[in-house]
Amino acid sequence: MRKMTKIAAVLATSVLLLSACGNVDNPSIEKKVEAQAPTKTDTQVFGPHEHLNQKPTPINIKRTGKHEVNVEMTSQITDIELAKGDVYKAWTFNGEAPGPVIVVNEGDTIHFTLKNMDPAIPHSMDFHAVHTAPSKNFANVMPDKSGTFSYPANNPGVFMYHCGTKPVLGHIANGMHGMIIVKPKNGYPTDSKVDREYVVIQNEWYKYNDLDDMTNGVPKYVVFSTKALKDGDMNTNGTVGALSDHPLLAKVGDKVRFYVLNVGPNEVSSFHVVGTMFDDVYVDGNPYNHMKGMQTIMLPASGGAVVEFTVTEEGSYPFVTHQFNHATKGAVGALKVTKNGQDDGSEVMSH
Amino acid sequence: MRKMTKIAAVLATSVLLLSACGNVDNPSIEKKVEAQAPTKTDTQVFGPHEHLNQKPTPINIKRTGKHEVNVEMTSQITDIELAKGDVYKAWTFNGEAPGPVIVVNEGDTIHFTLKNMDPAIPHSMDFHAVHTAPSKNFANVMPDKSGTFSYPANNPGVFMYHCGTKPVLGHIANGMHGMIIVKPKNGYPTDSKVDREYVVIQNEWYKYNDLDDMTNGVPKYVVFSTKALKDGDMNTNGTVGALSDHPLLAKVGDKVRFYVLNVGPNEVSSFHVVGTMFDDVYVDGNPYNHMKGMQTIMLPASGGAVVEFTVTEEGSYPFVTHQFNHATKGAVGALKVTKNGQDDGSEVMSH
Amino acid sequence: MRKMTKIAAVLATSVLLLSACGNVDNPSIEKKVEAQAPTKTDTQVFGPHEHLNQKPTPINIKRTGKHEVNVEMTSQITDIELAKGDVYKAWTFNGEAPGPVIVVNEGDTIHFTLKNMDPAIPHSMDFHAVHTAPSKNFANVMPDKSGTFSYPANNPGVFMYHCGTKPVLGHIANGMHGMIIVKPKNGYPTDSKVDREYVVIQNEWYKYNDLDDMTNGVPKYVVFSTKALKDGDMNTNGTVGALSDHPLLAKVGDKVRFYVLNVGPNEVSSFHVVGTMFDDVYVDGNPYNHMKGMQTIMLPASGGAVVEFTVTEEGSYPFVTHQFNHATKGAVGALKVTKNGQDDGSEVMSH
Repeated sequence: MRKMTKIAAVLATSVLLLSACGNVDNPSIEKKVEAQAPTKTDTQVFGPHEHLNQKPTPINIKRTGKHEVNVEMTSQITDIELAKGDVYKAWTFNGEAPGPVIVVNEGDTIHFTLKNMDPAIPHSMDFHAVHTAPSKNFANVMPDKSGTFSYPANNPGVFMYHCGTKPVLGHIANGMHGMIIVKPKNGYPTDSKVDREYVVIQNEWYKYNDLDDMTNGVPKYVVFSTKALKDGDMNTNGTVGALSDHPLLAKVGDKVRFYVLNVGPNEVSSFHVVGTMFDDVYVDGNPYNHMKGMQTIMLPASGGAVVEFTVTEEGSYPFVTHQFNHATKGAVGALKVTKNGQDDGSEVMSH
Repeated sequence: MRKMTKIAAVLATSVLLLSACGNVDNPSIEKKVEAQAPTKTDTQVFGPHEHLNQKPTPINIKRTGKHEVNVEMTSQITDIELAKGDVYKAWTFNGEAPGPVIVVNEGDTIHFTLKNMDPAIPHSMDFHAVHTAPSKNFANVMPDKSGTFSYPANNPGVFMYHCGTKPVLGHIANGMHGMIIVKPKNGYPTDSKVDREYVVIQNEWYKYNDLDDMTNGVPKYVVFSTKALKDGDMNTNGTVGALSDHPLLAKVGDKVRFYVLNVGPNEVSSFHVVGTMFDDVYVDGNPYNHMKGMQTIMLPASGGAVVEFTVTEEGSYPFVTHQFNHATKGAVGALKVTKNGQDDGSEVMSH
Repeated sequence: MRKMTKIAAVLATSVLLLSACGNVDNPSIEKKVEAQAPTKTDTQVFGPHEHLNQKPTPINIKRTGKHEVNVEMTSQITDIELAKGDVYKAWTFNGEAPGPVIVVNEGDTIHFTLKNMDPAIPHSMDFHAVHTAPSKNFANVMPDKSGTFSYPANNPGVFMYHCGTKPVLGHIANGMHGMIIVKPKNGYPTDSKVDREYVVIQNEWYKYNDLDDMTNGVPKYVVFSTKALKDGDMNTNGTVGALSDHPLLAKVGDKVRFYVLNVGPNEVSSFHVVGTMFDDVYVDGNPYNHMKGMQTIMLPASGGAVVEFTVTEEGSYPFVTHQFNHATKGAVGALKVTKNGQDDGSEVMSH
């Protein structure tokens, strides 16, 4: 019963899984990838943000009624290390990019407050999970102000959220994106078989705050961020478990579920887990959109899915976007499978 | 009864919805997008077309039997204003790009005549909606000649048509594309709930008649064109209503249907409506391919869909391809929702 | 009975279907595509491979039990002619790129041996069709060594295989990719209606062994390779027919099935057959993922499908990726439909 009123966000700091693409160690490739410049940033930082590095702020999520949830978030300027030595003065929700994962129940009304800690620019929140008039409830919150908005989340799924302030491309590409899961009232048909759940988000990074590069260039990095939902908690009562930030682990025989989302801002994703296939796929996370036996799931920009797969042997299972130019730029993760599901300290396979 | 024999095309001049991407008014973006050159054209106009600007020709569609439809179209050279002051000497069907929307019924035989008004180049018509041998019935029509072809449209859906003359990329990218809807014999399961219908077509524009840019470059513009089908007419008898060229409007509570199509020629689309989600999706417009509760629909190049969504509050609902580099280049539209479904003169939200 | 123990691979040399894109014969396009350089290779060949051109090695597939199949393949360096005069010193499986098509039955265990004939670089095999720990069974096989691995193929579908050795992008883009079909135990619902079957694989080619071009460039060629499965053999007993390397043919009225796969490595595909539409589509080749009446199927990088369509008239039916910049770079094929299904020597339509 207590669980039914607890909505705990997954606060885990993003684990950026960047493949060591600068260290191409195979001598067979003549031209190496240009050293992925570990310099500070490519261009001058936007003036008012220059000396700003706001400490990450925990998200505040609280259930206030059977179908009422309060969500308080910040927009803020926080340094994110994209690769060793390569720091990006990101525009973020709560100091993370992607922002914290939010989990609510189908049928909830969300009372959302955005505290804009940016002293210079308006920001806003566009939840793909809700029904509301954007001109009214995805409106700008001015610098140093707060804004509160309410809307229903009546459809289950794996949705994107992002800043919707103009120019939207700039706000998303600078880091203002994340995932909101709306848990289906009646669950997924495969719920009872799932042993553990993870969140995987794909996004691109471009040159710092450079709208021309974001519009016409190729991404500098394409990365996955992973966040762990508490093991075994998806069958309780539709609320979410506490955070658990250990690396991606499973034990032999587990059926693993990924809530996967491609936030772009520009590229599509061909999501694939090596060494297995997706027994069950729910496109955009809706239980009705059930597909089976897929090697790779196509994710549009701002497309999500629930994918489930079984790991049958001990070892390391990389996951990638099979658009391998993007995998080469970082979009490689790994799931470690051990006899008991605990980390045995072994190295994960890279790609 | 009279309605059953009336096939009226939607002739509305394309409403090109170009976001004001040259006017990035947010001071936070250091490098502005290069002014999207409002010059005439990038390169010399193809000689024989230089002094040609053929007046748009109304499409001629006439039902001649219960399952027989005559469609007469032109291929012609007509100036299209892509953005304020940026005129493109387009290769078109009937003087529009995209060309007029055609609507027929499942089971119709189409008797199609192409009148090629281009004095210099052959053109042709490839309907994705029909079964026929392309080498025979998608054949070239020589300059200043006409050609007539017949074929059945036996499958329901939202299909692309385009010029299939070599080099096909050049003919499509220069403007020769459009949508043909084949209405399903037994309708869509959700027909009775739909309050109004619109057509949305996405396409890219490149440098004028520059096959190298079309092949290896990035698009200069990515745009939506919208055309309105007559409100409430989809439940009558499978024929289509008269044209209605007011802006995209709905009233609070409406279930809105978009017939959406990405004609490319090169890019895929991640179609999304802000502030709502697609309750019902029919991939490529076939009633069998039913999906639910989607935030974003992936459209391949030459992929269509019927998407239906509900608007619950007054205000402005932008729609975009969520590949935001393309939205930044123009692919942003808006649906205005008012209390009574009439235009209240308010400004629409831009992105 | 004998058929049940026979697994014959489709060994047909790849028929590369390159459209004559260098010969743009339409005078209306001012800037022609730069002559697709018929020079040898763009950069220096990787030293140890310089004087290597290993003769194609037939794949060796042998059924050793009701549910046991031995597959022996090579990794080797073999010259492939991409276009007239443009030779690529490909990294291949068995001297082909794409490699030979493999067909097994759902429920088979594959005992796979890779004989690495490359004197300089390790290679490996990643089958998307199987369940196994990649770190263990997709492991590197050292130069001049062999490695044997076993894993189950328990799910039906049309899957990619590729070399999984780092940098994976380089190994795939240099030619190490192919298709493995796992035939569904209970077949496809439409099996009895299908008259003939073909394999179509799409892949890109970049500058020789140039990881920077592969990562940040645009493809030099995008091509289809087609391989014929023996006509009418799909209903026998789940094994595959002998090779048949005649051009793509059908007779009027045939229902044709394509096993189609996009191996990338980077691009997605919008697969379309001109003059018809897909009556039946099985996404990733799984019978459960059934869609109908589609004009174009979206294939992610490493996405497959079974598509079935009917050809109603004599003539030539081109197929393309409708991302026409890629079609312009080669991804155009054709199916010739004749009265009796035999080649009548007529020319096929190009695009």
